Amino acid sequence: MKAALIIIGNEILSGRTKDENLSYLANWLNELGIQLSEVRVIRDEEEIIVETVNHLRAVFDYVFTTGGIGPTHDDITSKSIAKAFGVALEVNETALSILKEYYKDSELTEARMKMTKMPKGSELVDNPVSRAPGFKIENVFVMAGIPIIMQGMLEGSKKHLKGGKVIQSKSIDVYTPESNVADTLSKFQDKYPEVEIGSYPFSKKSRFGTSIVMRSSNTKKLSECESEIKDTVKLYDKK
Amino acid sequence: MKAALIIIGNEILSGRTKDENLSYLANWLNELGIQLSEVRVIRDEEEIIVETVNHLRAVFDYVFTTGGIGPTHDDITSKSIAKAFGVALEVNETALSILKEYYKDSELTEARMKMTKMPKGSELVDNPVSRAPGFKIENVFVMAGIPIIMQGMLEGSKKHLKGGKVIQSKSIDVYTPESNVADTLSKFQDKYPEVEIGSYPFSKKSRFGTSIVMRSSNTKKLSECESEIKDTVKLYDKK
Repeated sequence: MKAALIIIGNEILSGRTKDENLSYLANWLNELGIQLSEVRVIRDEEEIIVETVNHLRAVFDYVFTTGGIGPTHDDITSKSIAKAFGVALEVNETALSILKEYYKDSELTEARMKMTKMPKGSELVDNPVSRAPGFKIENVFVMAGIPIIMQGMLEGSKKHLKGGKVIQSKSIDVYTPESNVADTLSKFQDKYPEVEIGSYPFSKKSRFGTSIVMRSSNTKKLSECESEIKDTVKLYDKK
Repeated sequence: MKAALIIIGNEILSGRTKDENLSYLANWLNELGIQLSEVRVIRDEEEIIVETVNHLRAVFDYVFTTGGIGPTHDDITSKSIAKAFGVALEVNETALSILKEYYKDSELTEARMKMTKMPKGSELVDNPVSRAPGFKIENVFVMAGIPIIMQGMLEGSKKHLKGGKVIQSKSIDVYTPESNVADTLSKFQDKYPEVEIGSYPFSKKSRFGTSIVMRSSNTKKLSECESEIKDTVKLYDKK
């Protein structure tokens, strides 16, 4: 099972706000056996939202979006998703009743009413943190951008997701430059095609090293691969 | 002037590593008057790298890539970029001479030689931090993924970039929910089309508020807009 994330927001692209949702979603999906396979960060522009959603929902099992479902003029995600699906944007009665619990009729301004409008055919995604819910239409899950609210909505999405085989991962840190272990790792990658072997240089307190990360849904092969690599690379370790 | 960033790496998509290059690049480009307009995070897979590079280099003035130019088997960015441009991957003599300063001939393993191979027609991008350089081919800048090296390579890219009008930004924090200021902001957005007005909810120490961010290359309009919005929203501030 594969998923994509669309981060919608000029504030991320301007560098003003650092995204925290990508790594949270990636780890959360890992536990369900769903692989986050692509992420796009795009501007709050209808045309690009429509194009991106329509491309990714055809390619991946699930698409998640974050951002742009609030009450202000720059929140255009819901409207754009309706357009992507070619359906009307309409008041969701359940969302409206949720907001009516919080606001008097006279306080239900045009801006607040905006948060009750969703593409026709959407199902609500619960928001246990603040009032306005997210929504799901077909395989697309539309969530808020604020990390704590997004994380709540993810829990609300869980019942709609079908997981796959869970990927386990193992990691070995060795204090030697990547280039010293490159040939070795290449051979192990050929020997263990069912294990995805990655190699990432790091520096800790001015010392350079390599993190070797192995990922697989086959736990037996993963353990074998880990133990063989460990035995081999310890020769290079300058710890 | 508009740019895109392609973050190449399974370690970002698996949630293992948090990307730090997006916000750094965004801020760095802002100062040159170049807008970061789209970011894609993709897997270390040749086909998707080729497709993504070819799409984005046709759409944007500049494309930056990070990750996948090291010595290990999972570093396939250079090879994939050569394929995207339909040119051979060949040893760059300058890159080779840089590596020869560090390694004896017998230490120039196949893995290390990999770092000297670049698409035919590339120019080197200096790497003041570690030895192996990045490269530039047409409007595509290929850099390392490690933040400190990527930042060094960006400085090396600067001479190749033509900036545009610098976007200034102003920000007002008000302690009131977004929905209270939404209608006001919408009116100001209509009044000041040359200013991009964004609105972002925040919570600090359990208090909710709204950051209003205004961005424009027109400093006069930006100041006017800021001062008018400030006067109006202070009525809502529950500081």
